[in-house]
Amino acid sequence: MTGPIEYVETQRVRLFTAETPLRLRSGRELAEVDVAYETYGELNEARDNAIFVCHALTGHAHAAGLHLGAKKRGWWDNIIGPGKPLDTDKYFVVAPNILGGCSGTTGPLSVNPATGEPYYMDFPLLHMSDLVQVHRALVAHLGIEKLYAGVGGSLGGMQILQWVIDQPDAMAKAVIVAASSRISTENIAFSSVARTAIMSDPEFYDGRYVEHDTVPRLGQKVARMMAHITYVSDVSLDDKFGHRRDSVGEEMQMEPDFAVEHYLQHQGEVFLDRFDALSYLYLTRLLDYFDPFAAPETAERLAATETTFQVTSFDSDWRFDTRQSMAMVEQLEAAGVAVDFAELHSTYGHDSFLLQPPGYHDRIAGFLNRA
Amino acid sequence: MTGPIEYVETQRVRLFTAETPLRLRSGRELAEVDVAYETYGELNEARDNAIFVCHALTGHAHAAGLHLGAKKRGWWDNIIGPGKPLDTDKYFVVAPNILGGCSGTTGPLSVNPATGEPYYMDFPLLHMSDLVQVHRALVAHLGIEKLYAGVGGSLGGMQILQWVIDQPDAMAKAVIVAASSRISTENIAFSSVARTAIMSDPEFYDGRYVEHDTVPRLGQKVARMMAHITYVSDVSLDDKFGHRRDSVGEEMQMEPDFAVEHYLQHQGEVFLDRFDALSYLYLTRLLDYFDPFAAPETAERLAATETTFQVTSFDSDWRFDTRQSMAMVEQLEAAGVAVDFAELHSTYGHDSFLLQPPGYHDRIAGFLNRA
Repeated sequence: MTGPIEYVETQRVRLFTAETPLRLRSGRELAEVDVAYETYGELNEARDNAIFVCHALTGHAHAAGLHLGAKKRGWWDNIIGPGKPLDTDKYFVVAPNILGGCSGTTGPLSVNPATGEPYYMDFPLLHMSDLVQVHRALVAHLGIEKLYAGVGGSLGGMQILQWVIDQPDAMAKAVIVAASSRISTENIAFSSVARTAIMSDPEFYDGRYVEHDTVPRLGQKVARMMAHITYVSDVSLDDKFGHRRDSVGEEMQMEPDFAVEHYLQHQGEVFLDRFDALSYLYLTRLLDYFDPFAAPETAERLAATETTFQVTSFDSDWRFDTRQSMAMVEQLEAAGVAVDFAELHSTYGHDSFLLQPPGYHDRIAGFLNRA
Repeated sequence: MTGPIEYVETQRVRLFTAETPLRLRSGRELAEVDVAYETYGELNEARDNAIFVCHALTGHAHAAGLHLGAKKRGWWDNIIGPGKPLDTDKYFVVAPNILGGCSGTTGPLSVNPATGEPYYMDFPLLHMSDLVQVHRALVAHLGIEKLYAGVGGSLGGMQILQWVIDQPDAMAKAVIVAASSRISTENIAFSSVARTAIMSDPEFYDGRYVEHDTVPRLGQKVARMMAHITYVSDVSLDDKFGHRRDSVGEEMQMEPDFAVEHYLQHQGEVFLDRFDALSYLYLTRLLDYFDPFAAPETAERLAATETTFQVTSFDSDWRFDTRQSMAMVEQLEAAGVAVDFAELHSTYGHDSFLLQPPGYHDRIAGFLNRA
């Protein structure tokens, strides 16, 4: 295969059924679980060249290439493709949508077979291990016994960590970027404000807004605008927008005027179309409770793994800051796991993991290609 | 006078009337302007011992002492009083509520004499100089020709800066804490999200919510919860709350569970009682446009002042970070003004200016007492 990835399609498979339900950490069961996913490159005969990509909070399966008729390439197209770090000439890359999401994989708006209507807030609260279980089933479905690597940023990186804890022989290499083994109190605080905005919105209707043919527009938009600020950095906002504004001269106005305001309004608006408020509630809540090293068996399980880890943070990322990555690295090393850790310089904040700050892609390629 | 300040009362005076209206920077006029204020200590015979205290965004005139029957002391009681840095045995301290506020001084909910009903959104957008003009009138009303010092944190510090620019002989000393001569793009961004939350709230009613016997509860609460996070620091949140939560064991819940969530909910709720949403809109907007050094005459005016400045920032303050204070210091020094600048260590973020991190109060006392 040569040239960039062109047309791809999202596939969908039912991995759990009424006969073989997904049993969650909480004890609850999901009788039907579908998973949306894409693949790039070819699985080799030995079936040992698969790289599994785990997306962040609001991601989806369309990680690379183009959908038919679309203009926008997948969300991680800069790193997946022929000759790129996740080199599809060498590797078979799998990118799914996560459990609890809203882009093809089962989530709160999926139909509960027991009632024939969407789960809404009756959808069970999820543990990171539940997401891992679904992805393990996808790996098995694809006929892969062991992954060459798991790669994830933010929530995706945290999922990779949980995966190795739950299944120490799951993958040879684990690449974790801009993540945490236990998010900061500040991080919980921001998500809590976002959930308050959504759940207090009069259009939320206890999560049954779809029945009312609406969405909690105010809450979801405000949640995203706020979160967006936390995904970038003060320096990048200064660089990109400064105090540029639309109105001229001395005139002030209460309505959005500065370029950064219009930008945030736009980010908030498009988020209403591309993501679901219930998924936002469930997935942020999952992050709040994520704390794998609180479990006494975690260190023991990690001691059994031969997986080597690469952990990367960015110096301007203040939502998942280096302090959090360092804590994870210390926990991993205390469990006897080999970790290649670096903090990279970038002005782009948490979003750096989706971009190409100097040294970042080379660092991942180097780790993946190392024998 | 000995012992702490006990009972104080907020006073109120009409400083501008239909005959002598307040002419704003925008050209608009306010025909009636009342100012609420408190004073502590005694004005000496030479009338040269007055210190003017400017409060922050959501402050008020009750800076020190106790109101009759109240239990909670004024918001800056730790720095104002006998033997304290703003020593009421030596100084006559004046603390007003600002124009556009909602605690006794004229603001958006005040009655417009031209219509007989509250201004609401017809209240004019304010410039920092408008606040200064009102305070100059209060100083004159109190029979003070020149202040010994002006002291302010956050918005209050920015007002002190504007005051010296507008009236270079206003005060001998200017104390500016945790402030900025032009807020960061990120700072504008946070305020913009707050305003979006308030103005999109269905209970906002184009600012006429009082007529509907309601307040934009969701928007105002979310705005405050978010802002509160930006006033503290990630370290202080970790120290104070960590991951402590109410529920026990493995049980997860979507409703607030972590201690930090209950705390933010509480902060959001009490803010509904103690502050007005329209004042929040007007005063945050004033901060966004504050940019005194953009005016070509600013440096020239400052060159004429004999006021000495003390500027202080805190290393954990990321809403008004040291970068912003440093920029102000450089602008002042470029204009030939003497500045005593220091960044102090504190884990409490922006709120440090209201607290007593090591060295802070001594620093202010030293500057005020210097001959």
